[in-house]
Amino acid sequence: MSATFHAMWASLRTIGRDPGTGGYRRYAWTGADADCRLWFRMQAEARGLEYETDRNGNQWAWLGDPAAGDAVVTGSHLDSVPDGGAFDGPLGVVSAFAALDELRRRGARFAKPLAVVNFGDEEGARFGLACVGSRLTAGALTKEQAHALRDGDGVTLPQAMERAGHDPDALGADPERLARIGAFVELHVEQGRALDTWPGDGADGPGAPVGIASAIWPHGRWRFDFRGEANHAGTTRLQDRRDPMLSYAATVLAAREQARLAGALATFGKVAVEPNGVNAIPSLVRGWLDSRAPDQAGLDAVVAGIERAARDRAAADGVDLDVVRESFTPVVEFGHALRDELAKTLAERADGRPVPVLGTGAGHDAGILSGSVPTAMLFVRNPTGVSHSPAEHAAEDDCLAGVTALADVLEGLACR
Amino acid sequence: MSATFHAMWASLRTIGRDPGTGGYRRYAWTGADADCRLWFRMQAEARGLEYETDRNGNQWAWLGDPAAGDAVVTGSHLDSVPDGGAFDGPLGVVSAFAALDELRRRGARFAKPLAVVNFGDEEGARFGLACVGSRLTAGALTKEQAHALRDGDGVTLPQAMERAGHDPDALGADPERLARIGAFVELHVEQGRALDTWPGDGADGPGAPVGIASAIWPHGRWRFDFRGEANHAGTTRLQDRRDPMLSYAATVLAAREQARLAGALATFGKVAVEPNGVNAIPSLVRGWLDSRAPDQAGLDAVVAGIERAARDRAAADGVDLDVVRESFTPVVEFGHALRDELAKTLAERADGRPVPVLGTGAGHDAGILSGSVPTAMLFVRNPTGVSHSPAEHAAEDDCLAGVTALADVLEGLACR
Repeated sequence: MSATFHAMWASLRTIGRDPGTGGYRRYAWTGADADCRLWFRMQAEARGLEYETDRNGNQWAWLGDPAAGDAVVTGSHLDSVPDGGAFDGPLGVVSAFAALDELRRRGARFAKPLAVVNFGDEEGARFGLACVGSRLTAGALTKEQAHALRDGDGVTLPQAMERAGHDPDALGADPERLARIGAFVELHVEQGRALDTWPGDGADGPGAPVGIASAIWPHGRWRFDFRGEANHAGTTRLQDRRDPMLSYAATVLAAREQARLAGALATFGKVAVEPNGVNAIPSLVRGWLDSRAPDQAGLDAVVAGIERAARDRAAADGVDLDVVRESFTPVVEFGHALRDELAKTLAERADGRPVPVLGTGAGHDAGILSGSVPTAMLFVRNPTGVSHSPAEHAAEDDCLAGVTALADVLEGLACR
Repeated sequence: MSATFHAMWASLRTIGRDPGTGGYRRYAWTGADADCRLWFRMQAEARGLEYETDRNGNQWAWLGDPAAGDAVVTGSHLDSVPDGGAFDGPLGVVSAFAALDELRRRGARFAKPLAVVNFGDEEGARFGLACVGSRLTAGALTKEQAHALRDGDGVTLPQAMERAGHDPDALGADPERLARIGAFVELHVEQGRALDTWPGDGADGPGAPVGIASAIWPHGRWRFDFRGEANHAGTTRLQDRRDPMLSYAATVLAAREQARLAGALATFGKVAVEPNGVNAIPSLVRGWLDSRAPDQAGLDAVVAGIERAARDRAAADGVDLDVVRESFTPVVEFGHALRDELAKTLAERADGRPVPVLGTGAGHDAGILSGSVPTAMLFVRNPTGVSHSPAEHAAEDDCLAGVTALADVLEGLACR
């Protein structure tokens, strides 16, 4: 198993990798994305799988007849955040092909069609909205909404698609496709340290290589526009200023405090300043808040607390504030039936030892699809918890344990 | 007088103006800069003045023989900050030509050569260093240092100059030119409200249209590089984070507090974040501090206080901090002899009423030249104090009072 697994990583390794940072820049519908897509197609064809791109640009590799229905689908995405790591997304796609190889090695006899999928534009790094491919398919994003997306250079999503050879007029919900899927399982590198510290009640535990997802926390993005007055930094008296950088700074610190008190997460990771000159008080500071919490009430309370602190400070600074919710995903509880089936399968292979079940703050295509088809997720241990960074890492043994677990799960689902 | 003054404004008005913001984007060695330079040349030639560009790209318009020495020079700059106002720089150049027109109208007989100057790249908006033209001329910036300057797109200053038709190998100190200058007077719109509230001891006073500069505060730019660890904003526990945005935010607030306590100015107006993704904890937040104070000891104390606060917070956040001083200009006291002469001239014309003398936090070419030649500055009232903004404004009557004052001063200096 490890030979083909290694070969897949070696061929993926250089695609879209920035030589300076060592991070990946695989943004939707760019040249790097096209290279990833070609890679997927070649993997499919090398295995004799039926390759297709669906109307929303997601790639599928089929073993068996899709029209037979009740298909078992696995996969993830190949795009990345800016300077992302090697595993977030690709581990799920590579493991999907490797698990198929493993099942063939085992001589498995498939009772249902099986597919590997690569969902397009999961990270939303270019157009600002995550999970575009799966959202479109599930009908959670309309063609009109998708056509209004625009990247930082003003290129619209349909323009970018067209340049990449995909027809943007084809975009839209794809219920026939979803109706043929009996189960979707996405394997993903964990993006925290829950597996590494498992069971971690208080002190860190001994850890576990693979776990099953229980739920995806509700999460969203809010844009805070602080508008003040541009002025000369060298001559404007402090009392005459309306400096939005001050209001922004106070809000960043308030967000951390609100999250800490609520056991939630809140992050300002992106900011845009106008005119952004060294000797100019800004006219506009725009900051984006990413916040997540275990439940809806907790998330609402955190965001309300941050907004309240921002408004108080902005009023004191003479600064105007607009807060816009740019995206939101409610809590996703993965269905208990499929989750329990996976847990049973994996426990049987582990001599009855229970497999960790954990929640996560990260959004995934699996979260989008879970409203339409029975969906589950497997996580592979991340020893540092680092993700969305070139330093993201997973040990080889853990990755191979992930492949084995995925093969076990697929065998249980598709070979009955 | 006001007719030619209006005509000059009308012809300058549209050059490099952004139709969206209404602000000016006249950056060194761009197309807008070339248009400003052509405008200057046309003004010079329309008045029968001898036009030349010096080795450092500064423009000169001579009345009389430069070689005669003891020349009286006036002028300012035509470039702008991003989305700058109409007056910062151009008011000094327009007023210089208008004052010359006024002196000719008066039938003045010049005993010395007189020149109008437009210094290149005063704002440093493109290459990050202010007063490049005057610094080079004064020997405060070497050719090698100038050649190492680079804009945000990676274009070097010599490349930009060459594209604009100026020989970058000619750059360098120009002592012969400076030796021919007996006095330099720069008129500039005030960038604070000292004239508007003059004499302003406690409550605001009735104000005055024109004043004389006493000194330019010491000022500088410091770059604060906060380096943390990029990570997933949705999954990384707060206690596992090394988030440089928090350290930056705390430093912004500390800067304001330190400046307030010291009666100084401190501003973070420019920031750059990596990777600057909504769902990524930043690996790097780079903020630029602009700070100024009435004296050196005060400035040192403010900057030291800000750096101390930044280091304390960075240590608590697990963030590394580098602080680099990118530029620094010590206090500039304008020579008392020339300043007193201007004050006497203007008081005589004002029936003995004394003219305001004020310090400023803004740097100017006059500050650079003051080390080499007798130099003075006139300020024109700015009713809101707003500068480096499209909203920058000066009343027409005040501008015309500025022209009259400049004409009076030049007459006193050049026509004895």
